Amino acid sequence: MSQTPDSAVRTYIDQHRTAFLDDLAEWLRIPSVSAQPHHALDVRRSADWLAGKLKETGFPTAEVWQTPGAPAVYAEWPSDDPAAPTVLVYGHHDVQPAAREDGWDSEPFEPVVRDNRLYARGAADDKGQIFFHTLGVRAHLAATGRSVPAVHLKLLIEGEEESGSPHFRALVEEHAGRLAADAVIVSDTGMWSEDTPTVCTGMRGLAECEIRLYGPDQDIHSGSFGGAVPNPATAVARLVAALHDEQGRVAVPGFYDGVVELTDRERELFAELPFDEQRWLRTAKSHAAQGEAGYTTLERVWARPTAEVNGIGGGYQGAGSKTVIPASAMVKLSFRLVAGQDLDHIERIVRAWAADRLPAGIRHEIAFSPGTRPCLTPLDHPALQSVARAMGRAFGTTVRFTREGGSGPAADLQDVLGAPVLFLGISVPSDGWHAPNEKVELDLLLKGAETGAYLWGDLAANWRHAR
Amino acid sequence: MSQTPDSAVRTYIDQHRTAFLDDLAEWLRIPSVSAQPHHALDVRRSADWLAGKLKETGFPTAEVWQTPGAPAVYAEWPSDDPAAPTVLVYGHHDVQPAAREDGWDSEPFEPVVRDNRLYARGAADDKGQIFFHTLGVRAHLAATGRSVPAVHLKLLIEGEEESGSPHFRALVEEHAGRLAADAVIVSDTGMWSEDTPTVCTGMRGLAECEIRLYGPDQDIHSGSFGGAVPNPATAVARLVAALHDEQGRVAVPGFYDGVVELTDRERELFAELPFDEQRWLRTAKSHAAQGEAGYTTLERVWARPTAEVNGIGGGYQGAGSKTVIPASAMVKLSFRLVAGQDLDHIERIVRAWAADRLPAGIRHEIAFSPGTRPCLTPLDHPALQSVARAMGRAFGTTVRFTREGGSGPAADLQDVLGAPVLFLGISVPSDGWHAPNEKVELDLLLKGAETGAYLWGDLAANWRHAR
Ligand SMILES: [Zn+2]
Ligand SMILES: [Zn+2]
Repeated sequence: MSQTPDSAVRTYIDQHRTAFLDDLAEWLRIPSVSAQPHHALDVRRSADWLAGKLKETGFPTAEVWQTPGAPAVYAEWPSDDPAAPTVLVYGHHDVQPAAREDGWDSEPFEPVVRDNRLYARGAADDKGQIFFHTLGVRAHLAATGRSVPAVHLKLLIEGEEESGSPHFRALVEEHAGRLAADAVIVSDTGMWSEDTPTVCTGMRGLAECEIRLYGPDQDIHSGSFGGAVPNPATAVARLVAALHDEQGRVAVPGFYDGVVELTDRERELFAELPFDEQRWLRTAKSHAAQGEAGYTTLERVWARPTAEVNGIGGGYQGAGSKTVIPASAMVKLSFRLVAGQDLDHIERIVRAWAADRLPAGIRHEIAFSPGTRPCLTPLDHPALQSVARAMGRAFGTTVRFTREGGSGPAADLQDVLGAPVLFLGISVPSDGWHAPNEKVELDLLLKGAETGAYLWGDLAANWRHAR
Repeated sequence: MSQTPDSAVRTYIDQHRTAFLDDLAEWLRIPSVSAQPHHALDVRRSADWLAGKLKETGFPTAEVWQTPGAPAVYAEWPSDDPAAPTVLVYGHHDVQPAAREDGWDSEPFEPVVRDNRLYARGAADDKGQIFFHTLGVRAHLAATGRSVPAVHLKLLIEGEEESGSPHFRALVEEHAGRLAADAVIVSDTGMWSEDTPTVCTGMRGLAECEIRLYGPDQDIHSGSFGGAVPNPATAVARLVAALHDEQGRVAVPGFYDGVVELTDRERELFAELPFDEQRWLRTAKSHAAQGEAGYTTLERVWARPTAEVNGIGGGYQGAGSKTVIPASAMVKLSFRLVAGQDLDHIERIVRAWAADRLPAGIRHEIAFSPGTRPCLTPLDHPALQSVARAMGRAFGTTVRFTREGGSGPAADLQDVLGAPVLFLGISVPSDGWHAPNEKVELDLLLKGAETGAYLWGDLAANWRHAR
């Protein structure tokens, strides 16, 4: 009986599973915590380890790229088919801080398998999800008899994602020529659940600002002056209250300019997901669902732009009371953006809106942080179809579509390289990203490798060189 | 040429001015800072010193009253006229903290006279203004040939005013029988300016609360959940924004219930004061006048009730940004109240207003601090007329009327003793209460003594026993 390609892939993965997990465990033992300066050398060790392992895997090129912060790893493995598409896999090798005493049942940097789960910091976010590609591409070659991948394969694995990727965009711009790709595959997200494999089709963007309001030159007595001069704490509250209208829509004029609305098909697909609002509220640790009228909870977090207060402050916040009119107050706002919204436009309209609304006697300053653009790949994009098909083969079930409410540096790749961003992740919500006892489900990890193994051939067959 | 009583008072004051100032300086050397535990013994020394000095002055009774905190001083000197009114003078012998390095040109507890001003912590607030009564009552006796005052004179000088008078009300309630009076004279305020002597006719009351709002059980990610759950920082801002209407009026339903409106005569008198709004704004260190429509700045701070935010906070307030929906937020509100407003009513309506306005999913708690009632003496009250006449004789000019926007423990005396509160103060805005280089103008201090000297006879002559 001759092997079908699928069973050949599975056989390869089964045979190499132990070595693969041993290697991953070795990597997970390196505490590559980018946010903690005393781990800076570990982050470098992690980059070196990965570059070495990628060479062992077969990548003819695997380099460590220095940045002013932590190093990234770049690798490429060209196809022998010049017309094949070029795919850039993105992930990160740095991890969140972790300490046993935070509530871990075992040492966070001493990987351990319990109940077919691999527990370690970085198991799911993101080392495990990068590393399955090494097994996947080898399985792809073994099952197809190829000596090089069916696509031109590139990897860019950054080292500062958990620190806000401060040097990532500059790095991408610097190396834009070598990074050029037809599609970016981000393996740093998850899927709906163990039973419901999904492909994420986009992430929201992010604009953040801090607005500081200044009233009196110093805190003044609310008895002597109260009722007769503007209070910056009141002014900041009125500004925040004016952020939304009665329908829960963001009331900054021009905010929805250009917004790509959900298609009926997308709404149908979201609605088909086995969503349990009470369960979702428990995950959100919240006690009510509330948002823009006319949209479901999933639509609100995945596909609608928002304005949220991340912090507000002014005046006396200690115990007891203090009868002052505060000299200043501030608010930190973040705007999640969806496809079609422009960061510069958002900054401009927020500045105008705030300036218009503040009373005489209140001076203000607004500072915007560098923003993150939204990204969205249409459902009918051929590369997205390939990802969904490859995942469907690996999981043996229908693959559904989600989006991600958060924002990530992958958007920089989209911007600089002009390539669509696709998401291939096998993590599930219970994996505990950034939390104690982070883990990855071993079965899902190997399904990730299997998906990768199918993906390269599918892309090469169905999406000829697009650029 | 026989002496008129006025010149007899002046002669007495001139002759005893040096000894009076030496005594005051001795008292000012005692750093009776009630807010600083290491000065607790100094506050006791200050009380003992004052009780001793009141005995020397002639008060047959002068006692130190212990409290769970700092001691008060009580003294009484009955008249020989049983039908004379009983007057209780209120002040405080504790002072604000002070240190040379805060910006004092000389040691704060080493009194020094420069340019006919006495510089020391407590010179104006409040030791100087208590102490002028000792010279005043002696001048009254000397000029009238009496051996006891024309009124039944009582003094209650507390020791915790600068710490919020935490035990004052209980003390007054405990001794209500001995403190019984027809009028309370508060000597712990000021007047308009050197050239414009004024009598204050009331103080605003004060209700304070802290409202805490709780949303998610912990800070949650604004990317994953933003736009779909209620944010307590947004909710607190909406609450604050709803505090006032477009006219600058407090929008809590029922807030103005019972408010005693300004009379036309009071508004005329306020309007006659030489008020310079630009100069007032400099004092307020503010950059615009703003408040309830239809009222002047003076009316707003003296005679209108207000709602002010003293502090607001929630979420991330540090440097940079943090994409959270905060678990909680809070606001500290204070309401200045005018005559006719009831503390219990205010608490009730604010609780109802807040509960009505908060969205599902936001839990809240409101805590009210003990409040202070407003006090107001009508312009035609005979005792008020006596104070104005006595001050007019001392200053040789028309005396005008003001109010005080702040709130003070004198309201407790009004409540417990059922007596009107009158204000006799000679401090001016430049005296620097609670600030470095606090001082009192020596000429005004002696005019205060002179006012006291005239006041007791005027009251006895024009206001027979009223109870
Ligand atoms: Zn990650
Ligand atoms: Zn005082």
